[in-house]
Amino acid sequence: MPIAVDAMGGDFAPRAAVQGAFLAAAEDGVAVLLVGDRERVGAELDRIGLSRDRIEVVHAEETVAMDEAPTSVRRKRRSSLAVCAQLVRDGRAEAMVSAGNTGAAMVAAKLYMGAVPGVDRPALAAVFPNRRGRTLVLDVGANVDSRPEHLRQFAVMGHFYAQEVIGTTRPRVGLLSIGEEYAKGNDVTRDAHRFLAAAGLNFIGNVEGRDVFSGGVDVVVCDGFVGNVLLKSSEAMAELVVGMVREELMRTSRTRFGGWLVRPAFANFKRRTDYTEYGAVPLLGVEGGCFIGHGRSNAKAMRNAIHSASEFGRAELSGKIGAKLTQLAAEEARLASSAGPV
Amino acid sequence: MPIAVDAMGGDFAPRAAVQGAFLAAAEDGVAVLLVGDRERVGAELDRIGLSRDRIEVVHAEETVAMDEAPTSVRRKRRSSLAVCAQLVRDGRAEAMVSAGNTGAAMVAAKLYMGAVPGVDRPALAAVFPNRRGRTLVLDVGANVDSRPEHLRQFAVMGHFYAQEVIGTTRPRVGLLSIGEEYAKGNDVTRDAHRFLAAAGLNFIGNVEGRDVFSGGVDVVVCDGFVGNVLLKSSEAMAELVVGMVREELMRTSRTRFGGWLVRPAFANFKRRTDYTEYGAVPLLGVEGGCFIGHGRSNAKAMRNAIHSASEFGRAELSGKIGAKLTQLAAEEARLASSAGPV
Repeated sequence: MPIAVDAMGGDFAPRAAVQGAFLAAAEDGVAVLLVGDRERVGAELDRIGLSRDRIEVVHAEETVAMDEAPTSVRRKRRSSLAVCAQLVRDGRAEAMVSAGNTGAAMVAAKLYMGAVPGVDRPALAAVFPNRRGRTLVLDVGANVDSRPEHLRQFAVMGHFYAQEVIGTTRPRVGLLSIGEEYAKGNDVTRDAHRFLAAAGLNFIGNVEGRDVFSGGVDVVVCDGFVGNVLLKSSEAMAELVVGMVREELMRTSRTRFGGWLVRPAFANFKRRTDYTEYGAVPLLGVEGGCFIGHGRSNAKAMRNAIHSASEFGRAELSGKIGAKLTQLAAEEARLASSAGPV
Repeated sequence: MPIAVDAMGGDFAPRAAVQGAFLAAAEDGVAVLLVGDRERVGAELDRIGLSRDRIEVVHAEETVAMDEAPTSVRRKRRSSLAVCAQLVRDGRAEAMVSAGNTGAAMVAAKLYMGAVPGVDRPALAAVFPNRRGRTLVLDVGANVDSRPEHLRQFAVMGHFYAQEVIGTTRPRVGLLSIGEEYAKGNDVTRDAHRFLAAAGLNFIGNVEGRDVFSGGVDVVVCDGFVGNVLLKSSEAMAELVVGMVREELMRTSRTRFGGWLVRPAFANFKRRTDYTEYGAVPLLGVEGGCFIGHGRSNAKAMRNAIHSASEFGRAELSGKIGAKLTQLAAEEARLASSAGPV
């Protein structure tokens, strides 16, 4: 089934989306529905000038701007974002991809595609590099003031995403907390720990901020406020480190020459940490897939996002997540009734 | 007035503390009270074998271990940590420095030194490198579940620390939040924003995780849970980046040779980001100074921590913080009474 791509979202729309869709179709064999203004999308396709195999344009006369209030997508039912979500709802697309307004994309996905049974709050899951591979962190910004039961839902969603999409065997799930004996987490994490321990996952207990990058945990669960700070700060920290090293390299002719020699090493490093390799973050817990990219996504990032969405579709996560959460709810109901007065 | 140094705290105690104290005394001219087991501290001093000018040993027969419950310091009134705090309380030391059990150091400082008037919750303030200089972030782990009024207290403490100790003119104070339109912070930050806007500081509004490293804000205020995750994760991220770059440099003979040439640049970079340069983080909001170092503090880190504590003492922050918070409380009381029924 094809992937619905919001051609009008992102800083480089529609060009980056159209080029990314072309690459995904031509090189990865993914069928794409390019959703947006027929004229502008068509003009971009003409500019590329090659085959349109596996690409279909679906007209949407409205757009949601990057700085618009996310709820405006409720009103704009013919916006490219809303139409993408409707195509997934109607079974015409497997999943949607957008580099547009993140909040609006989340609203559209929840509104039209709906939540998986048992999921109260869909969550954004980001992949971080670590020493040995990748760490999945969720939520990174879809929710704030999460309650312990929400964190358990995040854990279940992250477990299946790591297992089925990233390909991790028996993913180790950790609860993000602070290690200081003095506090040992906050009100929410103290309760969430109990919830997670009883969820039948490979729960390894509390982890700290440093563990995200250590390789000792595969799925890190946290409130979206904390996860968003973690995501934004570590991106900026990595950029700062690279910037500072570059600055130091320019100081003497010796280090400038050395800097030229080490360029291939820096290029490799960049490839290992480049966000465009991951393409986009999934909004887990909605029926069908929804991938949301950086506003500054280029064609390569869009292509990778479309590829991820296609793999995601094949993994059929919604059913697995729904079944697990339904089972947990049933167990709790049984425990509650057996604990009641006879 | 001298600085009280916990000679028994940290992974390399008493050696690192004694050597650091010696350097601070001999090279920075700071008077030091070395608090700990008389025999062991004396043996270390003998090993250095140089002058003991400006160094006095104060005996303390107990110690609080790194992994002990922080509250044990209440019972261990003759532990090196407790004695340090008592020396500050009794006016025999200006401030205390420890690389020992962080939680226990905080308990000791609050218990014996007491909080500055108007401060409900003392906070740990960490300095992060940014593109142009330094960003102060507080709280990084002394408190969880902070309420909006606590965040305002953090802002006042951070403002004066940045102004009087770091030397920033009119420090820009930001509230750590998440930028996503969809959420715009959580319950606490939404209220805290109002509190901070009315605090008479140079408040620049909400900032995001990335701004900690951008140089666009001088003081970032957040709950200790979030701040601790930020601190731990960005330290680990920086280490990961350096480790990955090193790994890439070893791949070919070209990049290995280049790597040798660029060593001085890496050394400079390391100096700019090395935690031992900052030495320790202050616990702001207690009467007198309390600096808490990394457990793995070496002699250099201890020396710099002692130096910071000595500068901190000269800045007389407690009075300034207390006066400002008292003034804010008075203004609120006036507003509340004038808004009441006539």
